[in-house]
Amino acid sequence: MTKKIGIVGYGNLGRGAALALQAAPDMELAAIFTRRSPALLAQKVQADIGTALPVASSDEAPQWQGKLDALILCGGSATDLPQHTPHFAAMFNVVDSFDTHARIPEHFAAVDAAARQGGHIAVISAGWDPGMFSLNRLYASALLPEGAEYTFWGRGVSQGHSDAIRRIAGVKNAKQYTVPVESAMQAVRSGAIPQLTTRQKHTRECFVVLETGADAARVEHDIKTMPNYFADYDTSVTFIDEETFAREHAGMAHGGVVLRSGKTGAGNQHVIEYRLTLGSNPEFTASVLVACARAACRLASEGKSGGCTMFDIAPAYLSEKSGEQLRAALL
Amino acid sequence: MTKKIGIVGYGNLGRGAALALQAAPDMELAAIFTRRSPALLAQKVQADIGTALPVASSDEAPQWQGKLDALILCGGSATDLPQHTPHFAAMFNVVDSFDTHARIPEHFAAVDAAARQGGHIAVISAGWDPGMFSLNRLYASALLPEGAEYTFWGRGVSQGHSDAIRRIAGVKNAKQYTVPVESAMQAVRSGAIPQLTTRQKHTRECFVVLETGADAARVEHDIKTMPNYFADYDTSVTFIDEETFAREHAGMAHGGVVLRSGKTGAGNQHVIEYRLTLGSNPEFTASVLVACARAACRLASEGKSGGCTMFDIAPAYLSEKSGEQLRAALL
Repeated sequence: MTKKIGIVGYGNLGRGAALALQAAPDMELAAIFTRRSPALLAQKVQADIGTALPVASSDEAPQWQGKLDALILCGGSATDLPQHTPHFAAMFNVVDSFDTHARIPEHFAAVDAAARQGGHIAVISAGWDPGMFSLNRLYASALLPEGAEYTFWGRGVSQGHSDAIRRIAGVKNAKQYTVPVESAMQAVRSGAIPQLTTRQKHTRECFVVLETGADAARVEHDIKTMPNYFADYDTSVTFIDEETFAREHAGMAHGGVVLRSGKTGAGNQHVIEYRLTLGSNPEFTASVLVACARAACRLASEGKSGGCTMFDIAPAYLSEKSGEQLRAALL
Repeated sequence: MTKKIGIVGYGNLGRGAALALQAAPDMELAAIFTRRSPALLAQKVQADIGTALPVASSDEAPQWQGKLDALILCGGSATDLPQHTPHFAAMFNVVDSFDTHARIPEHFAAVDAAARQGGHIAVISAGWDPGMFSLNRLYASALLPEGAEYTFWGRGVSQGHSDAIRRIAGVKNAKQYTVPVESAMQAVRSGAIPQLTTRQKHTRECFVVLETGADAARVEHDIKTMPNYFADYDTSVTFIDEETFAREHAGMAHGGVVLRSGKTGAGNQHVIEYRLTLGSNPEFTASVLVACARAACRLASEGKSGGCTMFDIAPAYLSEKSGEQLRAALL
């Protein structure tokens, strides 16, 4: 039976989820919910997907209860998901990509309570970090308990750091790239277990468009000395014009590496490395959400309910193939 | 409650499992079963582990029913495990590292039937390939359904190819290293989806000690033209003396890479890479077996029974930490 999936929110992530659902033979995009004008969005969706789809106001979602197998929540972590995920988990099986690491325990608690009450499955924090990187930290630490773990991000845009630069007076636009320090990654790969400071792991590259008449030296100083965001890093600031910004900094590539170096038994050294090189951060994140929506349907069909993460999902549940097919083809 | 674990077989893998259990705070090595002399093995185990442990004849294992939470089966895939795993799965929760890929479906069927009848959990084919590499093939194919997958092995010793060389007349001893072709891996990493022949993926390096008077040219020809094993590869043969063999080819390092390159949505290209660099093939495999024994205990405590693989194990079950700890620390 094809699973009927809904999407809440149609920014880069929601669009990525809509496209990923087209590639999934066992799922069908049945509805998109939006706070924007449904009529206007329907035209955009038709242009993206190539087929007419029901687009409805988010307020109408409750009327879809019983008609959808799962909802993929594509709002932002700052303000949307803390509201959306508990709200919708009371009515539907849901999946989100909540990525504010420090607030995951409280988000999990709120979502778990709502999902249990509604008798639904709610998968939170699916994506690549949190998500696939978290899984790899877990697998590697379970296999090499005596060891050290390193996560390197980039090269890719940090939305939070770009926003922080844009809040500085005189800045018209900005993109910040997080760049891993290659020599630090090589040191870990070699089997060494280095103690790395924040500065030794990543550098930060800022591309900034100034407002007319803004003081470049002051802006650069304000960026490089900003606590938490830049003060602890080697930061470069490059001023560019708007045309260059639009031409060279529109991409959404990202990625990174999770490394664990550890010892077993008689002192033998092992290194586990997981690396993602992503052409599109939102499209890859959306692909993870779609696979987790499949798993949510499967868990719900077994009568399970409550909050969970990718830690709690048997890998086979992410695939549309049967256990027999998977054992024959991939084991 | 500390889980009581038994080990069947004490070769390199069994010894690795015994050492890995020492590093697991939630498990206790309670018994080792052997076909050798239990008294002699007990001395060796005490030297390895630093503590006296019950070592018993494999024939006595049935008397331990109800006293062990899981058994780790450390026999070989060719003849031991096809017998051992169904036999012991009828009496205990078990984990094996059965690695004859082509025979996994029939092994699974036999083990599943025995485990169901006994009401136990049996995890088969745990290790790194099959095992962690299989998991990564599964995750990557679920996330990038439109793509191609590549597994490269090495540099490391292939036991099967070493054995094949030793069967040639005139060969006293031999080690065969499987070596991945770096340029082929780089091509995949770059985002290309190359069609790679067997020859383009791996080379084979053979180190051979000859019997006195053996014809080196004939041995080299017999190796390089051997169907299935060497004929489809670029193979090098180096003749060495016994001292060099003992000094330079005793290591058990291995590893490899699973790569998947694929596209999403609007044609964005992604590459997922999982790489293992293992100082000791048997010790790392044993670490996976120990983590899976933990998961087997957990699944059994939920009332589940039957055969399964790492595909069916929620990642959290491999860790001794609670869901709350994992979400706070690793998500």
